[in-house]
Amino acid sequence: MFGDRMNYPNGIKKHDEKETNYGNRGMILENDINETNKFYLANNIAIIHKKPIPITITKVHYPSRFEAVIKEAYFKTPSTTDYNGIYRERYIDFEAKETKNKKYFPISNIHKHQIEHLKLIIEHGGIGFIIVRFVSLDLTFYLDGKDLIEFINTNKRKSIPLAFFKQKGYIIKTRFNPRIDYLSIVDKIYFGGEHYEKSNKKD
Amino acid sequence: MFGDRMNYPNGIKKHDEKETNYGNRGMILENDINETNKFYLANNIAIIHKKPIPITITKVHYPSRFEAVIKEAYFKTPSTTDYNGIYRERYIDFEAKETKNKKYFPISNIHKHQIEHLKLIIEHGGIGFIIVRFVSLDLTFYLDGKDLIEFINTNKRKSIPLAFFKQKGYIIKTRFNPRIDYLSIVDKIYFGGEHYEKSNKKD
Repeated sequence: MFGDRMNYPNGIKKHDEKETNYGNRGMILENDINETNKFYLANNIAIIHKKPIPITITKVHYPSRFEAVIKEAYFKTPSTTDYNGIYRERYIDFEAKETKNKKYFPISNIHKHQIEHLKLIIEHGGIGFIIVRFVSLDLTFYLDGKDLIEFINTNKRKSIPLAFFKQKGYIIKTRFNPRIDYLSIVDKIYFGGEHYEKSNKKD
Repeated sequence: MFGDRMNYPNGIKKHDEKETNYGNRGMILENDINETNKFYLANNIAIIHKKPIPITITKVHYPSRFEAVIKEAYFKTPSTTDYNGIYRERYIDFEAKETKNKKYFPISNIHKHQIEHLKLIIEHGGIGFIIVRFVSLDLTFYLDGKDLIEFINTNKRKSIPLAFFKQKGYIIKTRFNPRIDYLSIVDKIYFGGEHYEKSNKKD
């Protein structure tokens, strides 16, 4: 899809953003996650989708009865995280971000609304987390939502140090397929390490 | 929101659509559901959101470093339903449609992908359903996903008769707030009629 390739920045209106290379931000990680989700779907492991980019449409042209072309629209601040779905009967919800920083992850990369959303999801019995890739280090972490919230509640820092990810997070290794098997971490934390039954897969 | 008011048609590329008044289709029901979801969120009952309209963006202008205006985009066929979230620790997933028809609901109003998605959600232990409003009759039904799938599997008809909704579905009455309390039906079907604890609400 062309839309995916262009990789629209969710945080485009966030003026205090540290990283301004919007055109590429999150592109590779996003692609890895989309491919991983396709693998999960094709193998009947989980139904997890990326939400479309939230926009406000202000002008549409109708060249014919069945065609519509959006001629003016604006990016909106998302009110939820980008990814959600179901895995092993549990509600799954997460946000994924890349950072070029080598020592910490600026919390401002995630909208306040999204953090608030993750809190609520956890309160309601869902599984919430973030996936953060330190691009320069080639390291991708799963950080559970509970640990993220605890960090925010107990720290005044505006960024999460790499050391915190190393201590509380889990490294997700990049493989061929699935590219980043983040659900194996969910298995560890929420299902006592027991991997999802192969017998439950389609084929 | 202007985007919401304009109510973009998800099925715009569906040439065999029976109802062609795209500009208004689903508008009032969609608004009722959005208001209901706001009520659920504000009262900490459930976290259910409408997904943004899926589009493919082909042209973006950047008038300044922090501004972006979409100058060309197209509506995409959705691969999932429009609404999902979490309620009482369960994954919730549904689609909502209005019809002007008085006797039946054309199944073509829901994309094949969306029906396939609902099937998968149910297989994975989620709660899936559709909300259908017969506008001319001023009747809004909850039809459980299992009944929808069973109808499709056992019938060759391309539309679901009103009688089927009356037999298997549940009427959702329109009230002041929440406007259409569809979770009370979920309570009936999935939680033995026991209503969601008031004690679990905020404040």
